[in-house]
Amino acid sequence: MCDQCDPNSDLLYKIRHSLAHVLAEAVLQIRPNAKLAFGPPVENGFYYDFDFGSEPVGEADLPEIENRMRKILKKKVPFVRSEMTVDEALAFLEKRGEVYKVEYARELAESGQLSGNTLSFYSSGDFIDMCEGPHVANTAEIPADGFALDRISGSYWRGDEKRPMLTRIYGLAFASKAELDDYRERRRLAMERDHRRLGVELELFLLDEEVGSGIPLWLPAGTVIRDELEKWAREVEFRAGYQRVSTPAIAKGDLYRRSGHLPYYKDSMFPPMVMDEEVDYYLRPMNCPHHHKVYASRPRSYRELPLRLAEYGQDFRYEKHGSLAGLLRVRAMTMNDAHIYCTPDQVEAEFRAVMDMYHYYYDHLRFGNFRVRLSLHDPESDKFVDNREAWERTEATVREVLQHLGVQYEEERGEAAFYGPKVDIQVKNLLGREETVSTCQLDFVMADRFDLTYVDQDGQLKRPYIIHRAPLSTHERMISFLIEFYGGAFPTWMAPEQVRIIPVNTDVLDFALALRDRLHEDLFRVTVDQTGETFNKKIRNAVTRKVPNIWVIGNREKAEGAVTWRRYCTKDQISVDIARAHEMLKTMRGSRLMDNFPDVQLPG
Amino acid sequence: MCDQCDPNSDLLYKIRHSLAHVLAEAVLQIRPNAKLAFGPPVENGFYYDFDFGSEPVGEADLPEIENRMRKILKKKVPFVRSEMTVDEALAFLEKRGEVYKVEYARELAESGQLSGNTLSFYSSGDFIDMCEGPHVANTAEIPADGFALDRISGSYWRGDEKRPMLTRIYGLAFASKAELDDYRERRRLAMERDHRRLGVELELFLLDEEVGSGIPLWLPAGTVIRDELEKWAREVEFRAGYQRVSTPAIAKGDLYRRSGHLPYYKDSMFPPMVMDEEVDYYLRPMNCPHHHKVYASRPRSYRELPLRLAEYGQDFRYEKHGSLAGLLRVRAMTMNDAHIYCTPDQVEAEFRAVMDMYHYYYDHLRFGNFRVRLSLHDPESDKFVDNREAWERTEATVREVLQHLGVQYEEERGEAAFYGPKVDIQVKNLLGREETVSTCQLDFVMADRFDLTYVDQDGQLKRPYIIHRAPLSTHERMISFLIEFYGGAFPTWMAPEQVRIIPVNTDVLDFALALRDRLHEDLFRVTVDQTGETFNKKIRNAVTRKVPNIWVIGNREKAEGAVTWRRYCTKDQISVDIARAHEMLKTMRGSRLMDNFPDVQLPG
Repeated sequence: MCDQCDPNSDLLYKIRHSLAHVLAEAVLQIRPNAKLAFGPPVENGFYYDFDFGSEPVGEADLPEIENRMRKILKKKVPFVRSEMTVDEALAFLEKRGEVYKVEYARELAESGQLSGNTLSFYSSGDFIDMCEGPHVANTAEIPADGFALDRISGSYWRGDEKRPMLTRIYGLAFASKAELDDYRERRRLAMERDHRRLGVELELFLLDEEVGSGIPLWLPAGTVIRDELEKWAREVEFRAGYQRVSTPAIAKGDLYRRSGHLPYYKDSMFPPMVMDEEVDYYLRPMNCPHHHKVYASRPRSYRELPLRLAEYGQDFRYEKHGSLAGLLRVRAMTMNDAHIYCTPDQVEAEFRAVMDMYHYYYDHLRFGNFRVRLSLHDPESDKFVDNREAWERTEATVREVLQHLGVQYEEERGEAAFYGPKVDIQVKNLLGREETVSTCQLDFVMADRFDLTYVDQDGQLKRPYIIHRAPLSTHERMISFLIEFYGGAFPTWMAPEQVRIIPVNTDVLDFALALRDRLHEDLFRVTVDQTGETFNKKIRNAVTRKVPNIWVIGNREKAEGAVTWRRYCTKDQISVDIARAHEMLKTMRGSRLMDNFPDVQLPG
Repeated sequence: MCDQCDPNSDLLYKIRHSLAHVLAEAVLQIRPNAKLAFGPPVENGFYYDFDFGSEPVGEADLPEIENRMRKILKKKVPFVRSEMTVDEALAFLEKRGEVYKVEYARELAESGQLSGNTLSFYSSGDFIDMCEGPHVANTAEIPADGFALDRISGSYWRGDEKRPMLTRIYGLAFASKAELDDYRERRRLAMERDHRRLGVELELFLLDEEVGSGIPLWLPAGTVIRDELEKWAREVEFRAGYQRVSTPAIAKGDLYRRSGHLPYYKDSMFPPMVMDEEVDYYLRPMNCPHHHKVYASRPRSYRELPLRLAEYGQDFRYEKHGSLAGLLRVRAMTMNDAHIYCTPDQVEAEFRAVMDMYHYYYDHLRFGNFRVRLSLHDPESDKFVDNREAWERTEATVREVLQHLGVQYEEERGEAAFYGPKVDIQVKNLLGREETVSTCQLDFVMADRFDLTYVDQDGQLKRPYIIHRAPLSTHERMISFLIEFYGGAFPTWMAPEQVRIIPVNTDVLDFALALRDRLHEDLFRVTVDQTGETFNKKIRNAVTRKVPNIWVIGNREKAEGAVTWRRYCTKDQISVDIARAHEMLKTMRGSRLMDNFPDVQLPG
């Protein structure tokens, strides 16, 4: 019986499931003694786990197996369901020596969940397998050019490292060859652009076990990208009336007991640093309580509101080891955070301004591939603060803002923060997997917990609303997306190395170095290739490093005071005089030109 | 007998000591039942501790007591030394009911440290006190206008809070009235400029018990100063060939066991976050090991050296509660750190370049008041790594650099880091107390511990030297100095509020707001005073806030498209047209003009 069976499944699900059976049949043709374990359909295909004993199967055997599978498909055999009593089934499987199937059948029988104390089997041609289905009616329904065997890996029986190690054969399966090819191409791209791979190749960041799992160290090239994002955020926030603060990455446990993060959020926090019986310190998992302290540092008047406090704050979360993934899921992060304290009257305008800022950033970065999710509370769940009126009011406000902006969005119940509704920006990676890149939350709870007040026009003390926002996400997550979306080719303003000057001979080296010094003085990140490599190798090295601008200098260029400018992303070459080239670079930096996209023109 | 007696003391010491006796004599004239405790000379003066029983003495009594002291001095009485056996002394003191003196005399007798089993007394006029001296020969030696009673405070007998609370009367004493006046003026200034006081007044930072003692939260105004310093350092370091990295504030204990900071430095670190028996994490007390990890992230060639890794790194040190002092001594800090990895041949040039950078910063900031200390190891102490040859070699190198630069410096044994000699920049605060503001260290040890290598020209693996440097200190320490040196009046480039525009009537408000928006767009920190206060009050408010530039706009200014520009530090007023004023601000920001000094001219 396969796991993950789903009676409501669609055709593709059935195709994948049926291919697992066909795979097993083909494998048994060449390894009649193989024992079968589980063989479910999965995302993008299927697999089957085998115990090959002393007759292993390797990658080299896959073409042979795939060939046999195609022959089986050609026979156009039907999938036929049958039932046996538990005793019959056990006797049948034991006779065949199917130790794994026997174990699982016993477990099912003992679970008491079988209806009618029977187990179902599916047979197709000469092959029969204990299985709940569903399957295609006939192998003729399976498009023979829509599948391919993919790879082999080891896998413990029942995922338990104390049980036998099995051999898992994976296959890809889609409704057509075109879809299969498309998936393979996207996967190739995704592997080529995987931020973990490019992170090493372009020396962006480092993960080191002696420092700690999931705690990245940013190398010089990666730090440039962080700094450029941060500089951008500072300018955008300054112009939008934010004030920056700088608060420590730790606090006493009392602060988190007050906020309610302790004990509620304790599993996601690093353990405490215990000073004595009365005092413990924690690494902070978020910046909010520190910002609330800044707000509360003196009495506030309505005249000061909205008060917008921004910080690229360092946070620490103890994610499970198994869920750590490069920069995407880490234990130490730096967040583009801000908290906006405002009166009820100001909520809508402030929330709208924040959403506008999100769109400004995402448009500029050319993040097309996102959707907006309005995350609401679930009245059935006790995960959320109990205040029906406030939930209805704030959810309505956020919904109105989204509608007013004409934003396409989907509502999802149960995805809110425990203290208020939020808007999530969901981004799909190259393989189509969706991640939340950032959120914007409307909080009607924390002002109460931290006793935050302002004196209103009528002289009364009132509670502000708080908007939590982080449009550029954490550096870690945002840069993991940027690396993959851009394939490691950053726009000039963000690029670790902005210009590489390649002198074609030693006569022009002085000229090249003088040009570098001139740009360096102006804070451009420029290098001169002074290696002894050939010209073509120098060009290839710069391209491998994805340097956005290569400036070639030969005798003619020196004589004319010009450079031959070659863009990474278009391979176009233009000749530009030096003063003009310098000005163009300044314009590109100043406007944060996205010249890593081929359709973007250099400044005229 | 007074504590702190020092037979090798100078005249001022004797004067201060003698004044303590004169103070006690004067006090006994108005409170004959007072019991005497200790009365030593101290820095800047003297004090005496009294038990007044039910007849307290307060600040209001000080003029009367001071008056009586002057009369005693006028009598020109000699100080006469005498001796008693312990028994005689105890009988004498007991008869007078001097319970504190009796206790101390007994303690001295029991200590076995008395020579000849006698105790010395000094008498002057009618007053006699158990005392080791030394004193002036005659009260005539004491300049009557060089002293003044200062203040009264409570003080526990023997500093033990379980013993009686005594009354301590402090006096100031110097060799002349001019010196006394000078000290009082410096102290007034120091109090007025105390960074803890100005930190609250100018809303620069916040210390909050719920976050933790000695863990500052930087408010918006303070964050501006941090950011401006950091931006400056980035530019200076970029031009000097540094590369920035960004590393986490935590690491596994293993990293600090390798560096040798654990257990050696453990008392200064926060306690560990214990994950399980095998893994513990620590807040980092310094950035070095993380930078070494970056260096070690791949093989290095001599061609890459010197490799200069810079980071404004967050560190945490568990300073004792009693030693915490505003921003000067904190538990959470951000350091202008960098590590330079270089070959032996490069050490001298690199060290020299670093010292040049120190001088550049300090000259620019107008820190006149510092001295350079060459801190050497102490061959007698086991605090230092045992490698005589390396110590001699590196100490000679650093000494040569300082001599070559023509820097005035003093050598001090035993002040080196445990891994190498260092240069300390010692700054005096307004009261003349010296603090180390930053250090530059030459390290011949850590490359070994972290197995750092480079492939040299000859193909051999070799160990680099490491220079540790932090010219701008930590933000916390540097800004505490800046606040006090500048009295909270920052130069325009660093000022939280760079320009305050004061419109003299509502007709010119639009004009003022448009001007503000224009500057704001250009990232200047500008506000318009829109309160309903009088013009004079508006000016006073801006001055109280120490805003470096006040731009007054009235009808004439609006008509002429000009501002009346008033500088905080000179009170000068000039009329400048708007476009020109904007340009001048840009120049001031670009050149980081120190316009908080009156001798500095605005750009012409």
